Amino acid sequence: MVDVQWERFAIMACESSRAVGIFDSGVGGLTVHRRIVERLPNENVVYLGDTARVPYGTKSANTVERYARNCAGALLKEGIKLLVVACNTASAYALESLRDNLDIPVLGVVEPGAQRAAQQTRNGRIGIIGTSGTIASGEYQRAIERYAPESQVYCTACPLFVPLAEEGWVTGGIPEQIVHHYLAALLDARIDTLVLGCTHYPLLKEAIGAVVGPEVFLVDSAEATAAAVADTIEGLGIARTTEESPERRFLVTDDTNTFARVGALFLGEPITNVHWVDF
Amino acid sequence: MVDVQWERFAIMACESSRAVGIFDSGVGGLTVHRRIVERLPNENVVYLGDTARVPYGTKSANTVERYARNCAGALLKEGIKLLVVACNTASAYALESLRDNLDIPVLGVVEPGAQRAAQQTRNGRIGIIGTSGTIASGEYQRAIERYAPESQVYCTACPLFVPLAEEGWVTGGIPEQIVHHYLAALLDARIDTLVLGCTHYPLLKEAIGAVVGPEVFLVDSAEATAAAVADTIEGLGIARTTEESPERRFLVTDDTNTFARVGALFLGEPITNVHWVDF
Repeated sequence: MVDVQWERFAIMACESSRAVGIFDSGVGGLTVHRRIVERLPNENVVYLGDTARVPYGTKSANTVERYARNCAGALLKEGIKLLVVACNTASAYALESLRDNLDIPVLGVVEPGAQRAAQQTRNGRIGIIGTSGTIASGEYQRAIERYAPESQVYCTACPLFVPLAEEGWVTGGIPEQIVHHYLAALLDARIDTLVLGCTHYPLLKEAIGAVVGPEVFLVDSAEATAAAVADTIEGLGIARTTEESPERRFLVTDDTNTFARVGALFLGEPITNVHWVDF
Repeated sequence: MVDVQWERFAIMACESSRAVGIFDSGVGGLTVHRRIVERLPNENVVYLGDTARVPYGTKSANTVERYARNCAGALLKEGIKLLVVACNTASAYALESLRDNLDIPVLGVVEPGAQRAAQQTRNGRIGIIGTSGTIASGEYQRAIERYAPESQVYCTACPLFVPLAEEGWVTGGIPEQIVHHYLAALLDARIDTLVLGCTHYPLLKEAIGAVVGPEVFLVDSAEATAAAVADTIEGLGIARTTEESPERRFLVTDDTNTFARVGALFLGEPITNVHWVDF
């Protein structure tokens, strides 16, 4: 992919100081931000959380696509060189439309997660969990079909995981019972690999791990996506080279203080430089 | 209240055929719609669910107030004679601003629920449960203070109740454990009255009742609000008098089919005549 896109993005090489843009419906995509910054510590990054319209996972394809275009537009105004759709639902519903309409590389979280799962499975039985929208879109199922056509895919939407993660209620008896309720059918299907197909779910990794046991490999799309972003930036030769310390900037559509407070749990460090935007 | 407003609304009497407008962040307000239609079966009713931006309960006061103005504006275009804010969070954050800016009567769900609780309590110990926004606003607490200044009020936000209700997972061991988790402190405080301060919560009435026991009276704001709407319409002399069968119309900001399907659970009957609107 990188080769054929050289020409299209040739102009970008001289703009390597531009930021990597990341958007998500809210705070969940900060788990992706975190992995990207670990991989690419020298990059400027601007993150947009659409906190006034969160969540996307329960909304229709049309509405999510419209919101994704709004988010991408706000980030393009910031002058970005690459766009990461850090929300599984927006990746599932809007990636193609964004790629068709933007002149910068656009990466989602579905493809990298599916690829990692296909590489990882030994018995060819892969579980996918995500929001209602992500599961209903069928995008993970199709992506895994491309990378591992002989595998069996088992999917379940887990609508209570996002509110549990956002409340920070992620360990103990009740979260584990809820995890068991949703995952029982996947365990019966003897999956050996489980894709955490929502950026909130890594916060429930401990409870999920306790239920599925150590023999099931958990795929965190955030890590796989960060690797894909690093590959793309290196492949296109658009890595930031200046030695000035990089800027980290956050945009939100609802309250900045709430985002800074809740987001710190997802980013793993304090959040400053948060600004309110409206579409 | 009705007396002093006679003059202001005198012009309304000739427009009695206009609809009652109701809005909520999503489907929850249909529990209020249901009670209003039971009380006032002859009224035209237009309901707006802001399903593209639901929920309001986790969002900031500024954002909820802005959304409430958008919803009220869309309903005013329909030509309504009275506005019901059927969302507790919007009632808590935006009622005053709507009343200041509109020339029709505006009723929320907080005041009627608080008044009913104040009438009901025997030991003066009242519990309030609602979204994070509703509880943080302090509106229920202030309203109960007005009606029963000698009472003690105990509040708890229950963020998982909305997703449980929307998923229809409202009975059984896990919902009851979640209810117990949130209500334990209120039970310790020996409340005898509990306000279900969110339009979704009546769907969890069975699980809540199983946890708090029959000695705690559950206040459903929907019923209290419907009574207040009926009183206002009768008091102002703006009841619809024509014998043609009344119109029931639904507006949503996201998918119409999903609203019709999920909403039927809340309304207690099939939903038709649903239209998409954008602000």
